[in-house]
Amino acid sequence: MSGMWGNKIKVSIFGESHGNAIGINIDGLPSGLELNLDDIAYEMRRRAPGKSPLSTARSEDDIPEILSGYFNGKTTGTPLCAIIRNTNTRSKDYSLLKDVMRPGHADYSGNIRYNGFNDYRGGGHFSGRITAPLVFAGAVCKQILKEKGIIVAAHVKSIKNVKDKSFIDSTLDLNYLNSLKSFELPLIDKSIEENMRKEILEAKEDMDSVGGTIECGVFGISAGVGNPFFDSVESTLAHLLFSVPAVKGVEFGRGFELTSMRGSEANDEIYYEGGVVKTKTNNNGGILGGITNGMPIIFTTAIKPTSSIGKKQNTINIGSKENTILKVEGRHDPCIVQRAIPVIEAVTAIAICELLS
Amino acid sequence: MSGMWGNKIKVSIFGESHGNAIGINIDGLPSGLELNLDDIAYEMRRRAPGKSPLSTARSEDDIPEILSGYFNGKTTGTPLCAIIRNTNTRSKDYSLLKDVMRPGHADYSGNIRYNGFNDYRGGGHFSGRITAPLVFAGAVCKQILKEKGIIVAAHVKSIKNVKDKSFIDSTLDLNYLNSLKSFELPLIDKSIEENMRKEILEAKEDMDSVGGTIECGVFGISAGVGNPFFDSVESTLAHLLFSVPAVKGVEFGRGFELTSMRGSEANDEIYYEGGVVKTKTNNNGGILGGITNGMPIIFTTAIKPTSSIGKKQNTINIGSKENTILKVEGRHDPCIVQRAIPVIEAVTAIAICELLS
Amino acid sequence: MSGMWGNKIKVSIFGESHGNAIGINIDGLPSGLELNLDDIAYEMRRRAPGKSPLSTARSEDDIPEILSGYFNGKTTGTPLCAIIRNTNTRSKDYSLLKDVMRPGHADYSGNIRYNGFNDYRGGGHFSGRITAPLVFAGAVCKQILKEKGIIVAAHVKSIKNVKDKSFIDSTLDLNYLNSLKSFELPLIDKSIEENMRKEILEAKEDMDSVGGTIECGVFGISAGVGNPFFDSVESTLAHLLFSVPAVKGVEFGRGFELTSMRGSEANDEIYYEGGVVKTKTNNNGGILGGITNGMPIIFTTAIKPTSSIGKKQNTINIGSKENTILKVEGRHDPCIVQRAIPVIEAVTAIAICELLS
Amino acid sequence: MSGMWGNKIKVSIFGESHGNAIGINIDGLPSGLELNLDDIAYEMRRRAPGKSPLSTARSEDDIPEILSGYFNGKTTGTPLCAIIRNTNTRSKDYSLLKDVMRPGHADYSGNIRYNGFNDYRGGGHFSGRITAPLVFAGAVCKQILKEKGIIVAAHVKSIKNVKDKSFIDSTLDLNYLNSLKSFELPLIDKSIEENMRKEILEAKEDMDSVGGTIECGVFGISAGVGNPFFDSVESTLAHLLFSVPAVKGVEFGRGFELTSMRGSEANDEIYYEGGVVKTKTNNNGGILGGITNGMPIIFTTAIKPTSSIGKKQNTINIGSKENTILKVEGRHDPCIVQRAIPVIEAVTAIAICELLS
Repeated sequence: MSGMWGNKIKVSIFGESHGNAIGINIDGLPSGLELNLDDIAYEMRRRAPGKSPLSTARSEDDIPEILSGYFNGKTTGTPLCAIIRNTNTRSKDYSLLKDVMRPGHADYSGNIRYNGFNDYRGGGHFSGRITAPLVFAGAVCKQILKEKGIIVAAHVKSIKNVKDKSFIDSTLDLNYLNSLKSFELPLIDKSIEENMRKEILEAKEDMDSVGGTIECGVFGISAGVGNPFFDSVESTLAHLLFSVPAVKGVEFGRGFELTSMRGSEANDEIYYEGGVVKTKTNNNGGILGGITNGMPIIFTTAIKPTSSIGKKQNTINIGSKENTILKVEGRHDPCIVQRAIPVIEAVTAIAICELLS
Repeated sequence: MSGMWGNKIKVSIFGESHGNAIGINIDGLPSGLELNLDDIAYEMRRRAPGKSPLSTARSEDDIPEILSGYFNGKTTGTPLCAIIRNTNTRSKDYSLLKDVMRPGHADYSGNIRYNGFNDYRGGGHFSGRITAPLVFAGAVCKQILKEKGIIVAAHVKSIKNVKDKSFIDSTLDLNYLNSLKSFELPLIDKSIEENMRKEILEAKEDMDSVGGTIECGVFGISAGVGNPFFDSVESTLAHLLFSVPAVKGVEFGRGFELTSMRGSEANDEIYYEGGVVKTKTNNNGGILGGITNGMPIIFTTAIKPTSSIGKKQNTINIGSKENTILKVEGRHDPCIVQRAIPVIEAVTAIAICELLS
Repeated sequence: MSGMWGNKIKVSIFGESHGNAIGINIDGLPSGLELNLDDIAYEMRRRAPGKSPLSTARSEDDIPEILSGYFNGKTTGTPLCAIIRNTNTRSKDYSLLKDVMRPGHADYSGNIRYNGFNDYRGGGHFSGRITAPLVFAGAVCKQILKEKGIIVAAHVKSIKNVKDKSFIDSTLDLNYLNSLKSFELPLIDKSIEENMRKEILEAKEDMDSVGGTIECGVFGISAGVGNPFFDSVESTLAHLLFSVPAVKGVEFGRGFELTSMRGSEANDEIYYEGGVVKTKTNNNGGILGGITNGMPIIFTTAIKPTSSIGKKQNTINIGSKENTILKVEGRHDPCIVQRAIPVIEAVTAIAICELLS
Repeated sequence: MSGMWGNKIKVSIFGESHGNAIGINIDGLPSGLELNLDDIAYEMRRRAPGKSPLSTARSEDDIPEILSGYFNGKTTGTPLCAIIRNTNTRSKDYSLLKDVMRPGHADYSGNIRYNGFNDYRGGGHFSGRITAPLVFAGAVCKQILKEKGIIVAAHVKSIKNVKDKSFIDSTLDLNYLNSLKSFELPLIDKSIEENMRKEILEAKEDMDSVGGTIECGVFGISAGVGNPFFDSVESTLAHLLFSVPAVKGVEFGRGFELTSMRGSEANDEIYYEGGVVKTKTNNNGGILGGITNGMPIIFTTAIKPTSSIGKKQNTINIGSKENTILKVEGRHDPCIVQRAIPVIEAVTAIAICELLS
């Protein structure tokens, strides 16, 4: 009903922000896949908090323990489950959050959905922290894709109104694509980095937050992957992308920009180059009829500004059933976009593995 | 791996544009639902071609025949299958399209996916015509929703750069929402209709096409519907929306616009009004943490300009393996947006029924 | 929640005995599979009624019409839907069966399940007739298996207390296995045929019915197919087998007989023969840990005696809410076992295709 | 493709006998369910080894740690994951079992399935130990069923040729049904207990093993639960039952015995008793057309004799590719039937919750 996804690469997620542990069970992995634990740890650190003034000061190690499906350094082919213990859970009093609903958060909708029995501490199952197991699963899937010559890479396409260039308009070599993950703000046009940083830090100073967009590409994927109704590449990716907290929009290729074009501009003309089929433009983001056409898959996700802000906001107390004012205390991310990048890449890798299986 | 969707309301689609018939099997319907066949026929006509200068001249009756699951005017609760015979399939020579790939279409990606065995006549299984069975299923689901006081309504939010107002900024009464489906161009602000029409007809004259956006709302839905990982309201809707041909973007609430806001603007403040929980704004489109909050669900889809255009385009011939030039002959829709509206509404109704089941 | 099955080869069934049509939609088929329509028709005839004194006199042609997914004599890879029109539906008065529940049938349980809205004519969706689309799907799947050198064959293992030999104890050549389908009563030991026939005809004379068992084998399947929890070969087969009306038991290999053995007898000893791994016995029916071991898959299903009998039976009238006596009129099968064989083979072929996909 | 099951109550299992931990993630549970941890621990102990001369001496505590989905003593409604650490894993040398395939076990089929990468220590993912998480999930589901007045109870129906009476032929009060779980050998007719015990202990003395049958009942379930094609009560139960190691047969009601009856005997006559619908017999085990009829669901599973025996057996060494002789060392269960009872009950409870959700 919610915590499981996939037909071939199946993931089953669990955990709450302040519970015993969070984790994920992955089924359908090939046997004999040698896991590079360093690469997995590297991906976990990319998402982990506490690394920079751009994100929250809460620091978690996020070291996964593999419980099953892993033997002699390789996957066994049976379900691979990994958990991450919750350690840095400040023993503060959460009773306020039990009743006072944070605007922009799932506090109220979740309370109704679970009849008030959900774990409200730190957002519970709705916490961004629950994306850590997804990053783990994504790291495993990236290793599968790497063996097939497929790279998943993403960059910050915009923070508020500061915009980077698009993959669609750029010619980037493999080295650059692979290096993107090492930057705090992965960008194509590095000249805008200072402005982006300023945008984030100004919001921080104002006890406010900003959002942005992430453009992600799947490079090296061949034509013929995906389906028409109902499991198109877009459907499969969007399904997972929209389960990542804070994602409110997904567009493929030029996406919404396509709606301002005429067909003659939007259609990607096709040609042979040395026997290989290519398109002159990639407005459709490498997907036609739900199926890859051999060009890179390109899509953009909208990440809304962090909901937790230090400013006073009007809201309700569902205990006393009265209107009230809330100032969310504690350490917040003034911008979640850069930390969301490895999550977006992770679910992309999972989705592509599913489509290729 | 593609033609079936859903866990509780399951649909199974089939058919090609020029095959014997297209259709859909719907499983998981409640028993005893009295079907209003006139309403179903009305929805089918909304999507059907040949009604206006804004769309293709190809005329199909699109009258569904119910084969099963329907007895004495009511659903039986067992699978309800309906088919639509393909009648107006011009017996012209399609052999050209076997080899010359239409830009913007699934011709090439589909050919690779199915090793050249797919039915290429009229786009085959990729034809927009295959959305007719979805409209049938949506019409049935709308009747289920209607009994629960839920209305699905949509309007053209933009054609190229001509933009209508948003549901989010409007206060529309139920009558107006219900009347939207009766307009050729359903709009909130009717003053822009003439400009929209002009935009479409100019493209038609130029043997070109235009796209646009559709904003859809689910009104009357209560709080607490949906899930966090992985079957959020957004995931469930987006999965179906992205299987509709020509959809290249989906955003909820303010969507991409949220990324230009600060958290303090984007968060929807909450208040009690006469004991009922409301939000002052609906920037999040009625969904937080993947779950409804009691406000209307609002989302927008990007529909790319019709791929079939009369203009010459560069492309390839996969038979001779040479570059070539194509001029797509025949009757085309200069704009598919208005015909896509009932399809968007239909998959929305199916998705909401799934979430409510 | 019922009419669809499978993860890779997905089938979606529909229809009622006296509705417009029955049919099945098959998704996930390979593209380019050349369908032998004669072989399909042959399988349909095996199940069809009206061929012999051993079964009902109701005669239906059961000729499927393929609606989609089939082009130029081959599968396209998109959903293949076929329907069978219901023709020989005597226009008799079914109002009695609306209220008087036939013992052994789904009349009462179905009435409760669907709140009285199910189509009760001729058993509706519960009719054995709905297995005809399964036979169609099975015939397609058998052609896939044939290309892989896999044969599905079955025989009557017993009718009441008249018992045939078991595949496990017999050495049959390929020709014999292939010829089984041509017999009215497919048997290993033909010397018992006369007794079986007598058993059936005596029951017929007494206006009663008999049941029996069907043993089915999958020959030529290699080792390593299947899964431990939860999609074992046994689970996958049993799931489909137990959806066939009248099946009340399924056992693999020696099945229940194994429970009277000691481990030292039941364990199949393993040996190499010319580099090939074999077992001396096949008590486990070719499956260990839910996975094939290279020996033929062998299993037996229990088919209960036909529920429709001409004898008087005590039952209830749910209209008047009174106890009553029923004598089921019309044409009945004194024994359904031989007609169930192609159905058992069909779901077996579907299940094996699923496991191999 | 294997480790997850269910549409509404979804379980996702993981673990190997000698890995870090085994466990299960349960999704779709209602929120606010108060878990009785003592009852859960009681069920875990029923399955745990080391309690009696009838089973293996290996002793494990099998105390589950709940990681998620549980807050303030109640389920939250989000995924509930529990793990059990593997502690008593003798650090002996398993290298022999890497190559020498134990007859009757999944050693060979699993090796082929996973290309030799599966964890072979103690049977790995094929170990009966992996049923412990199922017992945990079943214990949770039993608490859901208990609130609905439904009891799942089972007894040893036979050990080798020593047979107990059937639920179908007995009238047992609720107290007796509830007390069955407290017996080492739960029986209806206790006079046979001594013979059963002898049968097991003789096999033990002979370094051999015996199997048997388990009859399980679901009491208090109302009519109208289940589906025709493809998710009948039988299909749903059998799917889970056949994923339990050692289960080789499943029959409902009289099962295979029905095939020796005539229809007039097999059909359960129906009558009203004080306005309640009942059947005079329950030969069909409470299920008709895949749907409950209000009588108790009754079914029997065949448990083959334990495969691990101390006797010498012929087998192969897949390392040297030679025939060899194996004598399985270590502590074995001479009979697994009594320990399988809580597992059978557990998957039954899971399946019934799925059907009722």
